[in-house]
Amino acid sequence: MSSGKKKLLINTDAGIDDAQAILMALNDPDVEVVAITTSHGNTFEHHVCRNVLRLLKMAGRLDIPVYRGAAKSLIGESITGIYYHGSDGFGDVSDPEAPELTHAESEHAVLAIIRMAKKYSGELILIQLAPATNIALALRIDPDLGRKFKACYMMGGNYEGKGNITNSAEFNFHSDPEAAAVVLEELSCPLYLVCWELCLKHILTWMIYKDSDHYVTADQLVMAIVLDREAVIKKEKLVHCDVEISGKHSRGSMIVSWPSPLQQPPQDKQQRCIHLILEINHDLFSEMLLKATD
Amino acid sequence: MSSGKKKLLINTDAGIDDAQAILMALNDPDVEVVAITTSHGNTFEHHVCRNVLRLLKMAGRLDIPVYRGAAKSLIGESITGIYYHGSDGFGDVSDPEAPELTHAESEHAVLAIIRMAKKYSGELILIQLAPATNIALALRIDPDLGRKFKACYMMGGNYEGKGNITNSAEFNFHSDPEAAAVVLEELSCPLYLVCWELCLKHILTWMIYKDSDHYVTADQLVMAIVLDREAVIKKEKLVHCDVEISGKHSRGSMIVSWPSPLQQPPQDKQQRCIHLILEINHDLFSEMLLKATD
Amino acid sequence: MSSGKKKLLINTDAGIDDAQAILMALNDPDVEVVAITTSHGNTFEHHVCRNVLRLLKMAGRLDIPVYRGAAKSLIGESITGIYYHGSDGFGDVSDPEAPELTHAESEHAVLAIIRMAKKYSGELILIQLAPATNIALALRIDPDLGRKFKACYMMGGNYEGKGNITNSAEFNFHSDPEAAAVVLEELSCPLYLVCWELCLKHILTWMIYKDSDHYVTADQLVMAIVLDREAVIKKEKLVHCDVEISGKHSRGSMIVSWPSPLQQPPQDKQQRCIHLILEINHDLFSEMLLKATD
Amino acid sequence: MSSGKKKLLINTDAGIDDAQAILMALNDPDVEVVAITTSHGNTFEHHVCRNVLRLLKMAGRLDIPVYRGAAKSLIGESITGIYYHGSDGFGDVSDPEAPELTHAESEHAVLAIIRMAKKYSGELILIQLAPATNIALALRIDPDLGRKFKACYMMGGNYEGKGNITNSAEFNFHSDPEAAAVVLEELSCPLYLVCWELCLKHILTWMIYKDSDHYVTADQLVMAIVLDREAVIKKEKLVHCDVEISGKHSRGSMIVSWPSPLQQPPQDKQQRCIHLILEINHDLFSEMLLKATD
Ligand SMILES: [Ca+2]
Ligand SMILES: [Ca+2]
Ligand SMILES: [Ca+2]
Ligand SMILES: [Ca+2]
Repeated sequence: MSSGKKKLLINTDAGIDDAQAILMALNDPDVEVVAITTSHGNTFEHHVCRNVLRLLKMAGRLDIPVYRGAAKSLIGESITGIYYHGSDGFGDVSDPEAPELTHAESEHAVLAIIRMAKKYSGELILIQLAPATNIALALRIDPDLGRKFKACYMMGGNYEGKGNITNSAEFNFHSDPEAAAVVLEELSCPLYLVCWELCLKHILTWMIYKDSDHYVTADQLVMAIVLDREAVIKKEKLVHCDVEISGKHSRGSMIVSWPSPLQQPPQDKQQRCIHLILEINHDLFSEMLLKATD
Repeated sequence: MSSGKKKLLINTDAGIDDAQAILMALNDPDVEVVAITTSHGNTFEHHVCRNVLRLLKMAGRLDIPVYRGAAKSLIGESITGIYYHGSDGFGDVSDPEAPELTHAESEHAVLAIIRMAKKYSGELILIQLAPATNIALALRIDPDLGRKFKACYMMGGNYEGKGNITNSAEFNFHSDPEAAAVVLEELSCPLYLVCWELCLKHILTWMIYKDSDHYVTADQLVMAIVLDREAVIKKEKLVHCDVEISGKHSRGSMIVSWPSPLQQPPQDKQQRCIHLILEINHDLFSEMLLKATD
Repeated sequence: MSSGKKKLLINTDAGIDDAQAILMALNDPDVEVVAITTSHGNTFEHHVCRNVLRLLKMAGRLDIPVYRGAAKSLIGESITGIYYHGSDGFGDVSDPEAPELTHAESEHAVLAIIRMAKKYSGELILIQLAPATNIALALRIDPDLGRKFKACYMMGGNYEGKGNITNSAEFNFHSDPEAAAVVLEELSCPLYLVCWELCLKHILTWMIYKDSDHYVTADQLVMAIVLDREAVIKKEKLVHCDVEISGKHSRGSMIVSWPSPLQQPPQDKQQRCIHLILEINHDLFSEMLLKATD
Repeated sequence: MSSGKKKLLINTDAGIDDAQAILMALNDPDVEVVAITTSHGNTFEHHVCRNVLRLLKMAGRLDIPVYRGAAKSLIGESITGIYYHGSDGFGDVSDPEAPELTHAESEHAVLAIIRMAKKYSGELILIQLAPATNIALALRIDPDLGRKFKACYMMGGNYEGKGNITNSAEFNFHSDPEAAAVVLEELSCPLYLVCWELCLKHILTWMIYKDSDHYVTADQLVMAIVLDREAVIKKEKLVHCDVEISGKHSRGSMIVSWPSPLQQPPQDKQQRCIHLILEINHDLFSEMLLKATD
């Protein structure tokens, strides 16, 4: 019954790095992209939706359904600026041929996520490349959602106190800290987290390698791990993580319950743990990136 | 096409005062209870659902559909104690004849709210007697939800800094402060708010009147206002209100942007205002209560 | 040895209402103003100091020592605007005859407070008309400070959720919430608190009485109570109060542990209680004000 | 007039690691310990004072004056448990010969700090091995305090999000976050900060080296840097740091304004920067430790 391919549901705020990650998936013959859901994030959700449709059209894959999701964070915060890649998140290149937003499905992303997790129960892999609002909302309506996914691969957070949108917080988590906290706590499938510091290490390596300017490779790293987890990940740790939702300086920062280096007590069994990825195979990832962007 | 009756959608965490409020609605010939949605609150959501089904059975009105809603707050907080009216919220009276939870509809309360608001657009009145989680979730999925309701009548919050669950916060708002904030900010229909201090004034009057013990009349007051707004409300003010979502002592408290008594500047037109009810006709309400509880 | 007069130590951020309060004290033959300490608040501390010196010169009382105090709040916040009564807090009237700041004593206000509380142990009355920084600092260095004062009369806070500098907070408490919290918790002498809502009631009465514009009578009310407590206070309640030091909307607001109107449980004996003043004799206070401002 | 020796003022919450650090200073012929001030921290301040007196007696240096300081944090928090090294911070070894607390000076630590900074202006080096309460209080009373110190060497905070008392916070900063923030922001002398992660690196090295159990070397590292800064520090960075004073998970954590690894913009010149120490000479420090503990 199963096609044998990896079935992906991609939640995105595309974004050029999201777009490359999606292309990596589309180009892999062992992957089936079941659906794409859109989220506020780098830019407004309506720009994100248009960007995804343009990408799918360019790739000749407008058959993949696109579901429109949350335009605000869980508690109602809107984006207050345009963050990266121009005001539309795609470098503001005029595109008169872009598909209309009406090409997106009428079903809301949150309901589509709930429905597909049930339909492909045990098979579907969630790729979380954006603020986590859509997933947190789906969890509120279907508390068992996590058990239906095979796994979740997520970009967000930080494990050494380094931020990229504030001094203490990474962009995706900062854009919806409450949603990030809900997902880390309640999405009960195996969860692989790619944090900002891990991306940063590769960015620095990559800049030397390519003698290039700044070039973010965050969402692409998530996808590389999805495509070849065993080979790409060199080190991970199973740990509990919290997300700070208040504070004067720390909203959106991630706090890791590191096992003590001094005593090594067993982790509290009650606490939900995630796979925090700590080292990757830089050369392999660089190859995968070069191939994808050729 | 319209029946001419007031069409009510009731969101409840019943609770004995919720139950009386619902009975007041069922006994009014000019009212049609279109649906009841259940919420965590006074007790666990599954107790609430059973309580509502028992009530409807007792009233011979199991034809009214019951939709089960959120078991946790928007950001994932669960109730940590049983607050009022025994562990099941209904005084823990054994009831072997109670209907099974399977009598409730399979559609989730959030989706039912969105669907009915659309179906009865412009006609439906939302009665909000519980933590606001279900409504906030519905707003996240349908940002236009507010425009579809005729009005919302809501129990919660406080306008003179008096709490009932903490020193600074009222129970419904404290049980889900983020949801309360979302509803006050984003539910764009006329919103009538019955706060704790208003209930408290009537409770004190009522205790003298009935020579009775403590007897909470909060949700019943909301319903009395729904049934005869012009007669019951003696004074209201159109003001902006915020809900505190963090703080060492203040989580869940409400902050009113009172117009200054000294200068009377015009309110900021950008800010969403609600109808804060400040005085009621105590005698009329007492009569309505006595009639309903006969 | 004692003169039989009330011995006052006045902590001020003058301010026109502070100035009138000080004059009320200077004009009372049964009162001895032992010292005045200055604080940041309505304006910068150096303006406050100059204002106090001008006032004392005008009153022919430069014999009263003035000690300069905190220029910032306990945790280091500076005033970010000039709040009332012009940029110097005294209406910005040029005064070439104003005494130099060097007329103030060289001893720091905090040390003077500690020294005088000890010197006049059991006799000294602390009049707290400003942000509470100086007092909180003195308490940190001398934890027994409170036992040495006869009483403290303090302007600040709110008991019905009404603010004057934000929607939730009164000016003195908002200017240094941590210091206000320290004083309410740790200053162990009898403490009489005049909150914003009480002042507001009199202001509204007074505006009708005098057919005048806005005219703040906060610090003067504190002084009236000092001068004739039995006659001025009509109602008070002994309660525990907290000050909110964080929060999105509530920093600086006061939270009262009201005894429940429903059950009347005994107050937690462990908790420090203060005299919260709830009603005053408006006519008497108005007379005192008229006399003082003639 | 100057003795040519390094003049140290040591603020401590001794603590076995504090004690070793103090011994390192006493044993160095080029160092003069001008005074020791005591602070709440690892244990109650009166235990700390006794520990310091026992240490000085043992070393035959009761000539060094000891000034007793803050028993609570800036905003009034008391220690709620005994953290390390037994209930008295010194392993609870009975010592009938211990000097009485009355051997300490009567002047308060905060006043002694202010006085000595003035007396030895430009020469005195502040060694900050405890919660920063005493220093923050001194800064409130003498805002120019920082300019009078030659330098400050401080143990506390974290720069990679690792805590030792909570998942996000280091002990000294967590014990008084507001004081730590005040010192980092307002103490204007050159400030060298030894954070928890740096200590942890040496602890792990040291455990292998000595084949020993857990052995904390935090305060000793500060002192090693004081004694031979050029040789011990291998890498430092001049950065702005904030301390989180609120938050659900982050109270007491430190946030570093790292210069961006991607663009390297000049630091905001307005922001106060400190010397964050990032690498030390482990071998040299181990030698110094062995010599001191022989
Ligand atoms: Ca993205
Ligand atoms: Ca209810
Ligand atoms: Ca004042
Ligand atoms: Ca220490």
